[in-house]
Amino acid sequence: MNYEHIFDQAIERLHSEGRYRVFIDILRNKGAYPNARCFHGHNGPKTITVWCSNDYLAMGQHPKVIAAMEEALHNVGAGSGGTRNIGGNTHYHIELEQELADLHGKQSALLFTSGYVSNDATLSTLAKLLPGCVIFSDELNHASMIAGIRNSGCEKRVWRHNDMQHLEELLAAEDPSVPKLVAFESVYSMDGDVAPIHAICDLAEKYNALTYIDEVHAVGMYGARGGGISERDEAAHRIDIIEGTMGKAFGVMGGYIAADSKIIDCIRSYAPGFIFTTSLSPVLVAGVLASVKHLKSSSLERDGQQAAAATLKQMFADAGLPVMDTTTHIVPLMVGDPVRAKKISDILLAEYGVYVQPINFPTVPRGTERLRFTPGPTHSEEMMRDLTSALLEIWDRLDLELKQAA
Amino acid sequence: MNYEHIFDQAIERLHSEGRYRVFIDILRNKGAYPNARCFHGHNGPKTITVWCSNDYLAMGQHPKVIAAMEEALHNVGAGSGGTRNIGGNTHYHIELEQELADLHGKQSALLFTSGYVSNDATLSTLAKLLPGCVIFSDELNHASMIAGIRNSGCEKRVWRHNDMQHLEELLAAEDPSVPKLVAFESVYSMDGDVAPIHAICDLAEKYNALTYIDEVHAVGMYGARGGGISERDEAAHRIDIIEGTMGKAFGVMGGYIAADSKIIDCIRSYAPGFIFTTSLSPVLVAGVLASVKHLKSSSLERDGQQAAAATLKQMFADAGLPVMDTTTHIVPLMVGDPVRAKKISDILLAEYGVYVQPINFPTVPRGTERLRFTPGPTHSEEMMRDLTSALLEIWDRLDLELKQAA
Repeated sequence: MNYEHIFDQAIERLHSEGRYRVFIDILRNKGAYPNARCFHGHNGPKTITVWCSNDYLAMGQHPKVIAAMEEALHNVGAGSGGTRNIGGNTHYHIELEQELADLHGKQSALLFTSGYVSNDATLSTLAKLLPGCVIFSDELNHASMIAGIRNSGCEKRVWRHNDMQHLEELLAAEDPSVPKLVAFESVYSMDGDVAPIHAICDLAEKYNALTYIDEVHAVGMYGARGGGISERDEAAHRIDIIEGTMGKAFGVMGGYIAADSKIIDCIRSYAPGFIFTTSLSPVLVAGVLASVKHLKSSSLERDGQQAAAATLKQMFADAGLPVMDTTTHIVPLMVGDPVRAKKISDILLAEYGVYVQPINFPTVPRGTERLRFTPGPTHSEEMMRDLTSALLEIWDRLDLELKQAA
Repeated sequence: MNYEHIFDQAIERLHSEGRYRVFIDILRNKGAYPNARCFHGHNGPKTITVWCSNDYLAMGQHPKVIAAMEEALHNVGAGSGGTRNIGGNTHYHIELEQELADLHGKQSALLFTSGYVSNDATLSTLAKLLPGCVIFSDELNHASMIAGIRNSGCEKRVWRHNDMQHLEELLAAEDPSVPKLVAFESVYSMDGDVAPIHAICDLAEKYNALTYIDEVHAVGMYGARGGGISERDEAAHRIDIIEGTMGKAFGVMGGYIAADSKIIDCIRSYAPGFIFTTSLSPVLVAGVLASVKHLKSSSLERDGQQAAAATLKQMFADAGLPVMDTTTHIVPLMVGDPVRAKKISDILLAEYGVYVQPINFPTVPRGTERLRFTPGPTHSEEMMRDLTSALLEIWDRLDLELKQAA
């Protein structure tokens, strides 16, 4: 038994497939986002423009968020000091849960240390509480949902992405008396498309299934108050459990669910991933509270993001770059090969000061490797023009194909 | 299929067993810890003394930690904006990983969003990478280790707590050619006892097993530089993977592992719970960095904690209170019944302004419910005398038994 040899082989597999990941070494410049400093391969930091952050609305540098965090830091200190049950519950946590419940029109909400943990803990616990539960899962669901479903140990049926006919076939094939849970996302973050929420809810009602939606790439960004696609489509009341993150559009860190009080109380009381972990730092919670409150009443950031995404998509299409067709703020360019995607990304960073991470397996299926741009309200048209020119030059240099200009 | 009924029953079970949890609503007062404000059942906040925090050394209010967090907040903003691979890696993260690797004398370290996630992600991924792996687990291992072991899907052997003969029996019974992993804690947080690290390593070497130690209740607090029990016992070099938390003695939030670079690279590259989650806020990371650096060179906090624990144990023993025998900073009082433990805790809070959470199942086995005190360098002797008097009065009021004074 040679452990070292096994570890060597595991790493070698990644290198040989061209998907060994090297983390970029950067610091963003607060107040000047998407501007950042890159420490990678340079003498001293070099200025770059970040094009792949999930701080979608630049709320991570919003004065209200910063002020709230600074105040909490001086009011109560750095960490919470314990689990929610043992010393780590604070007034901030309670207030934020009320705020998030209100955002989604639900009775209650529950905070987790991350969106990943909220999906994993909730799905695995929920399915364990429902004897014999079968979970129906969209094939493009996020790794954290897949983890929660697998960790529940229950039966899983995977439906083809956004295919309602397939979902109905699978639902109809099950015993009507068995508990069912339909789990899906609103915005699929790597393709930028959206789930047909009402159609899914119609099927869930017809077959008496609970519904679980992951809105991490939508909360803060869609709906009049930032309640996500379920708010925009007036479907929130039809969803049993809405899951969201505080680490993307809200700009800070952490995850949550919103649902009826009974469901929240069950997850709160039975989920090991919630019970046995130090609660979120009150500093983070205070920041999220300010962010959620602000985005409930301001649409400026949302409108700016949508305008930026539309402009960038148009520029890419006009230039003949292979921009994928999306109806959301996400702007992916299909490359289709991990080595080539990394090459483009490396040139952009080294020669143009543009930071966009190549997206490879297992984040997307092999053969669909891509560059994923997330323009926001602080990306200017000049930045977009520079980016488009840089991409055209690289496309030419690497002999990549351009589409007919749209 | 009536979902509501099932959720009702799940909650009813907790009420009927007297272990339904109500979270206390508090805010600590930075600069005056263990002093805090309690919002629970009062008009306006009431001043209380916290006796059950895992901010063991009060580093959550240390001026260096607060200053570092404030600086990071104004330097880079609130959140990281992405996963470590996509936009969420910062210079702070890299520096902290180097600092933690150095703390434990290892080549590398890896940050996670929590200690829970570090155990779950590392154990489940490690065992999956080693084909046919068998995990040997101490019966009192934390819920997060149990989750990781279960989620790995591999074979598990549970040895009786700290029983080396039993561990050897189990190791000897396995095929020598099969990969093996021995997983245990250094300080068991609810009993306050310590693992025989060298004896475990002797067995692991004899049977060619990897070793994994959870030091979350020891890092910062034991060893000349705060490297934990493995540093104090000069055993760190014999352990393959050391896991720790930044949310207890370091006073902030997050978890980590330290190990050889190859192992770290494997977990970094294969663990979904590391890959697919927004990285720790740089504000938190900056705070931990300051905390770890400080505790590497200062023993003042450690010495103060040990002195406080010794004093409180002596006062409890002198008064005949059923203090459990521990060799660490943890001071548990055995009650043995969930309803009585909650009653004592309620009286302490309402009448004496003392906050100590009752510990019940599933955190400890049924019938061993207890109160768990964590005195630290900022708990004064006067606070301890007041606490002991309060407990004696309540013991008398509730007709509880006192031991012969020691």
